Amino acid sequence: PGRSWFLSTSSREEDSAMENIVTEKKAEESHRQDSADLLIFIMLLTLTILTIWLFKHRRFRFLHETGLAMIYGLIVGVILRYGIHVPRDISNVTMSCHVNASPATLLVNVSGKFYEYTLKGEISANEVNDVQDNEMLRKVTFDPEVFFNILLPPIIFHAGYSLKRRHFFRNMGSILAYAFLGTVISCFIIGLLMYGCVMLMKQMGQLGGDFFFTDCLFFGAIVSATDPVTVLAIFNELQVDVDLYALLFGESVLNDAVAVVLSSSIVAYQPQGDNSHTFEVMAMLKSFGIFLGVFSGSFALGVATGVVTALISFFTKLRDFQLLETALFFLMSWSTFLLAEACGFTGVVAVLFCGITQAHYTFNNLSPESQDRTKQLFELLNFLAENFIFSYMGLTLFTFQNHVFNPMFIIGAFIAVFLGRAANIYPLSFLLNLGRRNKIRSNFQHMMMFAGLRGAMTFALSIRDTATYARQMMFSTTLLVVFFTVWICGGGTTQMLSCQRIRVGVDSDQDNSVSVAIAEGSERRSTKQESAWLFRIWYNFDHNYLKPILTHSGPPLTATLPPCCGPLARFLTSPQAYENECQLKDDDSDLILTDGDINLTYGDITVSTDASGAHTSSGPAFAGAATSDDLDRELAYGDHELVMRGTRLQHVLVCKCNH
Amino acid sequence: PGRSWFLSTSSREEDSAMENIVTEKKAEESHRQDSADLLIFIMLLTLTILTIWLFKHRRFRFLHETGLAMIYGLIVGVILRYGIHVPRDISNVTMSCHVNASPATLLVNVSGKFYEYTLKGEISANEVNDVQDNEMLRKVTFDPEVFFNILLPPIIFHAGYSLKRRHFFRNMGSILAYAFLGTVISCFIIGLLMYGCVMLMKQMGQLGGDFFFTDCLFFGAIVSATDPVTVLAIFNELQVDVDLYALLFGESVLNDAVAVVLSSSIVAYQPQGDNSHTFEVMAMLKSFGIFLGVFSGSFALGVATGVVTALISFFTKLRDFQLLETALFFLMSWSTFLLAEACGFTGVVAVLFCGITQAHYTFNNLSPESQDRTKQLFELLNFLAENFIFSYMGLTLFTFQNHVFNPMFIIGAFIAVFLGRAANIYPLSFLLNLGRRNKIRSNFQHMMMFAGLRGAMTFALSIRDTATYARQMMFSTTLLVVFFTVWICGGGTTQMLSCQRIRVGVDSDQDNSVSVAIAEGSERRSTKQESAWLFRIWYNFDHNYLKPILTHSGPPLTATLPPCCGPLARFLTSPQAYENECQLKDDDSDLILTDGDINLTYGDITVSTDASGAHTSSGPAFAGAATSDDLDRELAYGDHELVMRGTRLQHVLVCKCNH
Repeated sequence: PGRSWFLSTSSREEDSAMENIVTEKKAEESHRQDSADLLIFIMLLTLTILTIWLFKHRRFRFLHETGLAMIYGLIVGVILRYGIHVPRDISNVTMSCHVNASPATLLVNVSGKFYEYTLKGEISANEVNDVQDNEMLRKVTFDPEVFFNILLPPIIFHAGYSLKRRHFFRNMGSILAYAFLGTVISCFIIGLLMYGCVMLMKQMGQLGGDFFFTDCLFFGAIVSATDPVTVLAIFNELQVDVDLYALLFGESVLNDAVAVVLSSSIVAYQPQGDNSHTFEVMAMLKSFGIFLGVFSGSFALGVATGVVTALISFFTKLRDFQLLETALFFLMSWSTFLLAEACGFTGVVAVLFCGITQAHYTFNNLSPESQDRTKQLFELLNFLAENFIFSYMGLTLFTFQNHVFNPMFIIGAFIAVFLGRAANIYPLSFLLNLGRRNKIRSNFQHMMMFAGLRGAMTFALSIRDTATYARQMMFSTTLLVVFFTVWICGGGTTQMLSCQRIRVGVDSDQDNSVSVAIAEGSERRSTKQESAWLFRIWYNFDHNYLKPILTHSGPPLTATLPPCCGPLARFLTSPQAYENECQLKDDDSDLILTDGDINLTYGDITVSTDASGAHTSSGPAFAGAATSDDLDRELAYGDHELVMRGTRLQHVLVCKCNH
Repeated sequence: PGRSWFLSTSSREEDSAMENIVTEKKAEESHRQDSADLLIFIMLLTLTILTIWLFKHRRFRFLHETGLAMIYGLIVGVILRYGIHVPRDISNVTMSCHVNASPATLLVNVSGKFYEYTLKGEISANEVNDVQDNEMLRKVTFDPEVFFNILLPPIIFHAGYSLKRRHFFRNMGSILAYAFLGTVISCFIIGLLMYGCVMLMKQMGQLGGDFFFTDCLFFGAIVSATDPVTVLAIFNELQVDVDLYALLFGESVLNDAVAVVLSSSIVAYQPQGDNSHTFEVMAMLKSFGIFLGVFSGSFALGVATGVVTALISFFTKLRDFQLLETALFFLMSWSTFLLAEACGFTGVVAVLFCGITQAHYTFNNLSPESQDRTKQLFELLNFLAENFIFSYMGLTLFTFQNHVFNPMFIIGAFIAVFLGRAANIYPLSFLLNLGRRNKIRSNFQHMMMFAGLRGAMTFALSIRDTATYARQMMFSTTLLVVFFTVWICGGGTTQMLSCQRIRVGVDSDQDNSVSVAIAEGSERRSTKQESAWLFRIWYNFDHNYLKPILTHSGPPLTATLPPCCGPLARFLTSPQAYENECQLKDDDSDLILTDGDINLTYGDITVSTDASGAHTSSGPAFAGAATSDDLDRELAYGDHELVMRGTRLQHVLVCKCNH
């Protein structure tokens, strides 16, 4: 029934119309399925959040949110794997097509029409008949690159952005030693041990495929990235010793970067000879060159973007429009990642150093509102990404299709991971203690050993490539290592702390920095020794020249540059530098060595802006090079100055309240 | 050179290793290219932000950020199209493979190995030889579903979330009329006019493919979604009349939802007979049923998620953990979208009503910090998504491969869009004015006519499907309509405002609401008439029962429920409801009819918490049904009350400052 007042159509048109409808229906169905799959993860996260709230509310500390996310992931994984069976749909069965190569794009000619197909990946021969049945499981499997390109960057950026801690800089040398030397040591120890294990397995006929020495080294690199997020959350809550916190946090942030670059240089190891798995000096050197090149390139890129953002926010008055400011900050930080990836460097590493630079320079140029906004934004992104990764980890234990669980390899891996961590912490601590006045005590060493959890980075690196037998076995083993460390080591943190008699309840708040500094006055001299001369020079340069040029804080350049550069200094110094001096004290006090140092490089200007007006300093201006004797005198002077500043700081605080 | 102490490998292994390396290299190359492409957009956005800042700084108003984003997009599009030529890479040329169907997944057998391919789309025959050359252009072309599933939801949610305006509710009836009736009228007028135009083109032999009446209607639906973001930004800045603002904003937010559902029901129109483009009553009714079903389903889903979030935040004390609170809010809002899509409803519509519900209920349960956080988060997402869409629009004018520009169709479309908007605004305004006391004056009508810009929604709907000739012509024409309206109508807003003598500088701030209300005391009576009895009942029900149950604000249920329900009321009322009454006044005053109404439904409790303690009311408690006379008396009483409340409000403000 019905009047045909529309255009009448020919039979061909009808066919094509019907075909379009079928295609549209299919696309709609697939879209619906995708939405449902994503919904599973959102629901998982929601559930995790509600349970976390309950835990926090009741002050349970034995299970961190990441551990919880994994448990929920596991449960959903079991349900998906064993609970749901998709009936085989005949009309949707995939078809085979014999060609000679596997290009990235494939054109398929279907009765005169061309369809474009893109390569998704290789499927092992025994799975081909099983494709339909696993379709549903593969649906909830994300492209591994998602972790590396979408979820990891905000986590790493947030780590860098929140690294702005006074005690981080105080322990700079030790942190760098643990992160660089320690990760390399750990990587090679684990690699060698695993090679022994693999050889043994081969002898016993337990190996089902190739496993080369480079694979062992790769495994060593990926499980060397520590992620003590669980431990640090408890540290934060219990206010554990700040030095221990700084050592652990700094090490874990930087060793992620080292592990990423290390693993990619191991993959790049390609001897030129016929046999691609022999040892060759040239290839080895090339790999080492790649490591240095990629690391320094990513580092430079990250810092460069950070500096550019600082300059933009310095020269424009974006602070009047907070939305634009926040958006710019976000986009610039993201573009670091993309730029690094486009140049062939490692985006994650670039983003880390971009975050550190942004925190150090750009943060000071942002309006207070944008400072909050950016912090909160990245905090939220970090939270969501982290919990997503951990719940996906739990899920993937059951939904991943190509698990290879080999008991011998797993036991070997656990032993190797333990020994690798030990070979990192104890010998390095011994060597560092030779140079440190403020020793890393043995209970700190045990705690660091214990806190070597493996997390998001290890997982992302191991899931990135699961094409070969070796990689599949690594992935399965890595999952177990992550589960074990997060649940057992993470859950036992409180017990371990009390067992090692590490003091808790240390107040590290900024406001107390003055009183703490006075109380710890005797420790100051040791701090001086501790921080290397190289770092002191850098600090002075940064504080006197870089900060004033890149931010609105820091002393005016007119005061730090020699008088002959007067016009240039006046041009580069922002008007705020003169006005904001009151605020500057706060900004600086949380990041650097000792408060004495600030006075020392800054003595002459401090006083002219002293709000109380009672104290007039005659200390000589100090900028850059000075003999050790000078430094000592300055530090002693700083001690005296500090007490005076204590009163002034209080005065400033009162000012703010009245304001 | 080099010692071979690694495992020696067979020739087969080498081959497979080499193959793996080649595949890896290819994947790396493609990933690098993707990063570079995304970087182009990030740079575009950064450039836009900096230019916007310059414009705002210099107070240029003739070009909005979205217009600017389009211009930058156009420039980059021209460069990509004509400036860069990718040399033809032989090794990467795609290959053909003849099969009989085009399944979603294709397994390809390459010398014993199976590779999985996924369908990307159809390619027109004349493009096949040209694939390589266009590879680069197609690289910067996003999957159209990205717009609908990633970029549009935050925009729409933000619109709903910021709809919480006093004047929106005052003009509720008119807004609903414009959004529902108006959009349908506009859709059919444009559809009919375009059908005439297409028939004429067919007669003149200017039509290169099929163009059915349903296509014309579809075109009518997609260009009926208005997006006056440019106009509203200027309204905000110049503080244009609040009623006009509410009418335009409300209409544009709701008509997006109507247009989406309308277009999908037009697509769903499928007569059962042989000829798929004839008129059939049953199919027509079915389409109408789909419209109603999808709209009400999406509406219900959105409201349901909003209510669930409100309940969760009501019963848990999440406000102690702002991060969890914000994360939960974000996830629940996102899950609305996914849930709706998974159920076959329209996610965008669900998200809109979820946003409105969240603003109305959940927002009141959030801690003040989370209120800021969520607002800022969605503001940022909205900003980024909007500018991304508009710059992509500019880009796509040159990079889209299948443009069909037909001068006659374009001219016809412009005329039809103009007439369709006129047929929406003028007749409806006339009818509405019959019922309204506070008439929509003719200069307001002209302004609404002028402000019918087309934007993100129109674009997203038109790019979603560009498979057929008709859809391609629509897409190209839509692009031009968007460009024209955003640049010309958006840019001319200030001129139009002064030409129509619409008063600017109206202060609509909340803080002034009391004085404004007093000044406009005479207008109040008309307000009463204006709001329909249905709406009044709803408001009373909402304020007396829903708000107290779902949020920590609103009067305690013990006061609004009949005494017999005492225990239930005490169970459902949160302790805060008694404490927060001071704050409640502020919450409510910005959303509803007139302040008089609040007193009227709330008279008995108001007074007991009166901070000044000077005024004691003896007004009868009023809840639900009342005769018109009662209402009038209450309103008169409200007038009196209002002056007293003015002093109290000031008292409260002083309280807050001291606090």
